[in-house]
Amino acid sequence: MNDVDVVVIGAGLAGLSAARALIAAGRSVRVLEARDRVAGRNLGGTLSNGVPVEMGGQWIGRTQTEILKLVDEFGLQTFATYDDGEAVTLYQGNLTRYGDETFGLTEATAVEVGRLQAELEAIADTVSLSSPWASDRAAELDRRTVDEWLRANTDDAEALAFWAAVVPAVFSAEASEMSLLHFLFYIKSAGMIDILVSVTGGAQELRVVGGTHQISERLAAELGDGVVTLDAPVHSIAHDDNGIRVEYSGGALSAAYAIVAIPPTLAGRLRYRPAMPATRDGLTQQIPMGSVIKIQVAYPAPFWREAGLNGFALSLDDPLSVTFDNSPPDGSCGVIVGFFEGAHARIAAGWSPEERRAAAVAALTKLFGPQAAAPIDFVEQNWMEEEYTRGCYGGRLGAGVWTQYGAALSEPVGRIHWAGAETADVWNGYMDGAVRSGHRAAAEIIDRFDS
Amino acid sequence: MNDVDVVVIGAGLAGLSAARALIAAGRSVRVLEARDRVAGRNLGGTLSNGVPVEMGGQWIGRTQTEILKLVDEFGLQTFATYDDGEAVTLYQGNLTRYGDETFGLTEATAVEVGRLQAELEAIADTVSLSSPWASDRAAELDRRTVDEWLRANTDDAEALAFWAAVVPAVFSAEASEMSLLHFLFYIKSAGMIDILVSVTGGAQELRVVGGTHQISERLAAELGDGVVTLDAPVHSIAHDDNGIRVEYSGGALSAAYAIVAIPPTLAGRLRYRPAMPATRDGLTQQIPMGSVIKIQVAYPAPFWREAGLNGFALSLDDPLSVTFDNSPPDGSCGVIVGFFEGAHARIAAGWSPEERRAAAVAALTKLFGPQAAAPIDFVEQNWMEEEYTRGCYGGRLGAGVWTQYGAALSEPVGRIHWAGAETADVWNGYMDGAVRSGHRAAAEIIDRFDS
Repeated sequence: MNDVDVVVIGAGLAGLSAARALIAAGRSVRVLEARDRVAGRNLGGTLSNGVPVEMGGQWIGRTQTEILKLVDEFGLQTFATYDDGEAVTLYQGNLTRYGDETFGLTEATAVEVGRLQAELEAIADTVSLSSPWASDRAAELDRRTVDEWLRANTDDAEALAFWAAVVPAVFSAEASEMSLLHFLFYIKSAGMIDILVSVTGGAQELRVVGGTHQISERLAAELGDGVVTLDAPVHSIAHDDNGIRVEYSGGALSAAYAIVAIPPTLAGRLRYRPAMPATRDGLTQQIPMGSVIKIQVAYPAPFWREAGLNGFALSLDDPLSVTFDNSPPDGSCGVIVGFFEGAHARIAAGWSPEERRAAAVAALTKLFGPQAAAPIDFVEQNWMEEEYTRGCYGGRLGAGVWTQYGAALSEPVGRIHWAGAETADVWNGYMDGAVRSGHRAAAEIIDRFDS
Repeated sequence: MNDVDVVVIGAGLAGLSAARALIAAGRSVRVLEARDRVAGRNLGGTLSNGVPVEMGGQWIGRTQTEILKLVDEFGLQTFATYDDGEAVTLYQGNLTRYGDETFGLTEATAVEVGRLQAELEAIADTVSLSSPWASDRAAELDRRTVDEWLRANTDDAEALAFWAAVVPAVFSAEASEMSLLHFLFYIKSAGMIDILVSVTGGAQELRVVGGTHQISERLAAELGDGVVTLDAPVHSIAHDDNGIRVEYSGGALSAAYAIVAIPPTLAGRLRYRPAMPATRDGLTQQIPMGSVIKIQVAYPAPFWREAGLNGFALSLDDPLSVTFDNSPPDGSCGVIVGFFEGAHARIAAGWSPEERRAAAVAALTKLFGPQAAAPIDFVEQNWMEEEYTRGCYGGRLGAGVWTQYGAALSEPVGRIHWAGAETADVWNGYMDGAVRSGHRAAAEIIDRFDS
């Protein structure tokens, strides 16, 4: 008697992957999407010269096998992020070029950073990906912040400045804003720190020709007409032993099960009848989204390549702290992508677009020389302002949250199941994790139909 | 052309105090309340023998002048919390009676706790109540957690155990779950630690005969018929230069201004058209409510008094960690009020009512002797399960939140103003702060009407 077997809330990679798996298992599905587009944190954009640039998630690493499978199935092409030549690091006004594993740090600091990394990874290795709260020493690791651990373990100011750029580069949040357990879980979920921060061999290795948002568009198209409803923000989910009834702008529908495939903090803003149990609700009160403004600065050509630079830069001095070469595959123009992240993003959000552009260009000029001062285009995306995302790259867990609320991330409440990159145990927070989470939630429901 | 001048969302002390001040200034007001009752975090209950007990906020201190004024105006009677005799502290199985300032700690630890308290208060004294983010050393104080500061400043295990009971007793959250700046702001807002934790001379000195919820009931009655609408959860607030339109279950209404007088995390769950700016939204993602289950255990008589005890106990060993004498003013029966707080509350929430009762009675028996094993009644209130509160005593700010988002706590967004105990600068988190916040928000709007 239900309108469909399963209603999915959110047409990002998680929701669409779940819908696809359910339909493949013979189930009827409706996907309700608040926005006027699919793809969630993936968003296509273009420079004024027509070159496509991604305003949201863009990179794929070779160990991200679930998202790569989709790319392959849909016949999308990938290309390697430009990675020839040397990188640069700016610290206290000193610009260092490097082609080795030092991150451009002074020798002693590079050794110290390596020691800290090895120590963090050794602890991370003891963390359970499926049940972080049940890890050895979970209570202690969850009580401490990453910032506190770093300061307790080194006095090297340059090393601390390095981590103060790298932690926000990965999390869009400051080291003080997440528990050590969350950091350790997350790095293990991705395969440890080198994979997270690297281009070749890491999470930034590949790009999709035309943009990653196409993956969601292809998924949605394949689901068929009438499966995905856009402009349909969900307001309430009534649920009982017999089923689900969802009310959204423009309508209502009934289903046997629901998958909520939006970030936990947004899931907490839906109205549930009956209301969520305290643990689930408390979880959604405590997974704030990261803070990032992604900018792209275009030039007539990727001039840094001629200088032997690969476009990867860390500035420990500037609010724009991380950059990569984001030029199109044909090199027809040069594009640098950079990020205001964490505390920098929150400050830069208070500036005008012109001020952000000026700050970005000033940083790029220090990093790549005077040619960086004359861009031909500048585009930006402030994910904090997006009502239906409210921050990127994803949600983080502060001190105490994993151990006291973590199980509620993916544990169904009655007939409501949960998906989204934040619920993944492999590649948590990434496109790959989003796809995995959708498959996991779909499998849970297929099992319930079958039993 | 508006239905009213001001719509107030939430009929707790903040919203009702705001409404009263606006009406006194000649403005028309509607108060929309999601629940079927007023008073928010104040809630009257009764023991099976008819004795009234408060299921939520109950105590008033003598420096809480705004709430005392209301008590006085409405002709409500206060009585002193029983405070004759000695208190007890249980630590590692040792029960200590004391009548001095030692909190029942060993002499060395009492000195150490005093030193830590003095040091915390000296730093708190440098914190700005109106703009905590602008305090000296704000960035450093906001980066650190209270737990980290305590562990960095003492190795005394008994002192750490003491703070691990006292911090949740004040905040319903663990020391690792809030920034040092939040802790310092909060204690200064109340007049420092002794005032917060004391009965006579402190925040627990007075009770209201019949219960504190009567203050809100009197406020609502005085506003007049038709001003407060119950069972009216608000779903959306449209706002522009011309006014406000609020949609709620059962209707809609227009106003020139709105006051949102609910906790920030719940305010973040409303749908705003246009959506909130990122800073306001980010704030609401990061003020989780405290965790508390309040229990009351009744006996034929306040037997502990005969033993020379005042009913105040700290157990550093048990999930029920703090108790007070909560007997009625006529002493017609004995009542102990106790709290599962912070991590203990989250664990105890997973137990059955019988298990919580058994755990409470076991703790009370250790603290007050074998007579505590035979209660005649047990009532409890789990505030985490309350859909329209979602935790008590109030919201807390984790590391980084005050400095990066604090200004958004009370800064109006267009025609929307904010009230609630979390927005107060004096007695933040308390009934008194709630009243002050309502007056502040009302004054802001009266100014706008007058200008």
